[in-house]
Amino acid sequence: MVVKVLVNGFGTIGKRVAWAVTLQDDMELLGIANRSLNSNVKSMMGANGPLKGMKIFSTAGGAGFDGTLEDVLSKADVVVDGMPSGIEEKFKPLYEKYGVKAVYQGGADENIAPLSFNADANYAKALGQKAARVVSCNTTSLIRTIHALDKTFGVDEIFASLVRRAVDPADDKKGPVNAAVPETEVPSHHGPDVNTVLPHINISTVAVKVPTTLAHLHAVVGKVKRDVTTEQVVEAFRKANRIALFAAKDGYTSTAALMEHYRDINRPRGDMYEAAIWSDSVKAEGRKVYWMHAVHSEAIVIPDNIDAIRALSGIEKDATKSIAKTNKTLGIVNDF
Amino acid sequence: MVVKVLVNGFGTIGKRVAWAVTLQDDMELLGIANRSLNSNVKSMMGANGPLKGMKIFSTAGGAGFDGTLEDVLSKADVVVDGMPSGIEEKFKPLYEKYGVKAVYQGGADENIAPLSFNADANYAKALGQKAARVVSCNTTSLIRTIHALDKTFGVDEIFASLVRRAVDPADDKKGPVNAAVPETEVPSHHGPDVNTVLPHINISTVAVKVPTTLAHLHAVVGKVKRDVTTEQVVEAFRKANRIALFAAKDGYTSTAALMEHYRDINRPRGDMYEAAIWSDSVKAEGRKVYWMHAVHSEAIVIPDNIDAIRALSGIEKDATKSIAKTNKTLGIVNDF
Repeated sequence: MVVKVLVNGFGTIGKRVAWAVTLQDDMELLGIANRSLNSNVKSMMGANGPLKGMKIFSTAGGAGFDGTLEDVLSKADVVVDGMPSGIEEKFKPLYEKYGVKAVYQGGADENIAPLSFNADANYAKALGQKAARVVSCNTTSLIRTIHALDKTFGVDEIFASLVRRAVDPADDKKGPVNAAVPETEVPSHHGPDVNTVLPHINISTVAVKVPTTLAHLHAVVGKVKRDVTTEQVVEAFRKANRIALFAAKDGYTSTAALMEHYRDINRPRGDMYEAAIWSDSVKAEGRKVYWMHAVHSEAIVIPDNIDAIRALSGIEKDATKSIAKTNKTLGIVNDF
Repeated sequence: MVVKVLVNGFGTIGKRVAWAVTLQDDMELLGIANRSLNSNVKSMMGANGPLKGMKIFSTAGGAGFDGTLEDVLSKADVVVDGMPSGIEEKFKPLYEKYGVKAVYQGGADENIAPLSFNADANYAKALGQKAARVVSCNTTSLIRTIHALDKTFGVDEIFASLVRRAVDPADDKKGPVNAAVPETEVPSHHGPDVNTVLPHINISTVAVKVPTTLAHLHAVVGKVKRDVTTEQVVEAFRKANRIALFAAKDGYTSTAALMEHYRDINRPRGDMYEAAIWSDSVKAEGRKVYWMHAVHSEAIVIPDNIDAIRALSGIEKDATKSIAKTNKTLGIVNDF
């Protein structure tokens, strides 16, 4: 069986998920739907694009499309919604009308779907569900790292300071150019969002936006349930899925240096699907642990979207098998 | 016959040339030489890198290398010097001692080699020479665009204002963070550098550095030798080699949007080998012509380096054939 997938919304996430779907031998991309024939469409579906010849359906009418969203919805098994935050509410009734299972993104309200999703933490819960919401990039990185420690030692408490990239690299309209912008509503919403997947974790988060486009950087301090050594914490991270360790002392001194690594290994787009932990920043003091990680906001949720398609469709019941397949097709490894 | 190539210096240019050499069926990469086992080496020669297993030779001693630069120089036909500006002078006597032909970069003094090189403008002049200096990224883009108009209409005069990216994307040490820095020595050195390849062009340039890492942007006004229309100028650019046209009205509104295009088409590293002209910025008024183009400082000279290897070695006497081969292996096309 092959899952028929439609991607609705061709922005930062949608275009990546669409391409990733074409790499899966158990999925077929029926096409993408979008409001306009924007430069993403022109570049990726043009003569030199990786989605050349793919069908494109309109969500708002207009010329140059292969049909409307409704034309294709009846043929799809799963739709991945990549619409801007808030807009997905408009499409939900349409997905339900056609009985298509839906993968929403982290910008959506948590009540849009029966569950919030992270492949490592709760794949099995999505089996048989009608919809799932893949949590946001920041939340995904927190869940992966915290879950790794929680499985190994148990986690008592987490405080995370999020230093956020301001906009995606291709966004040439929004700022700030030269200011740090505190999210003064504290704690930030990221802690509660982690709790949609890991409800038992006592977590507080704060967030500041800075003028960089590359990646978010989280500085985290937490308490685990027993005394640990730095080496044990590093080992727990090393064994975890979709976490990569880099040492500043090896020259990986910043988000810029990390992104250069992914260009150096010829990863398509330079995408970093892994949560990247600076191994030198990991430290244990009794039960207290410190670490810093980088989050590629454009890319980290892509593998979880692919796994969510498998879980909702039921084509793969085993989380480990789905994750392994996704990792292989996207070139995700734990050691660089 | 296969040209045996060594790359000495594994920075922004060296690592790209080394990888590009491995794509050529008439070249063999003997290895690379470098001062240290830096993060470029770790990423590209590591378990997941595109140069996994490649030999690395030391220029300054140290452990972990497969030998010294001199060990491998005697086996090489051509060395591509990717050393920092000024350092190549130190290596020149060594290349000459071993009778190895040398490709230098644009940061070197123009007298380091018998000629400055651009594949479109003077490939044939490099045949049989001992060394050539591939001109810098800014100069390469000026030569490509000016040469396209000069071949078609004749060029009387050029004034170019260069708005320069401050540092390469992976450089997390240098600034400026929030200042525009004028190069107050006017005219800038770029005009005379164009003259090393196109001596008959009357050109003046000025340069300002701004806090961006993506690409340079040149705003150019010139006079051609006869009255022309905007359409004729666009057509001359469209037919030229390694020039790509993009329209701001299609959404390619900035250097950021252009770089996103190259990620969207899955170009390795997102490298833009082409000089990218905004077609909407091209305008003719009688003999006067305007255009703006973007220059990916990390990548634009890579195809010219590959062609320089062929010209110096003499393995291909025909510029058109070498250029076509290089373009094909790197995925360079004129129309996106």
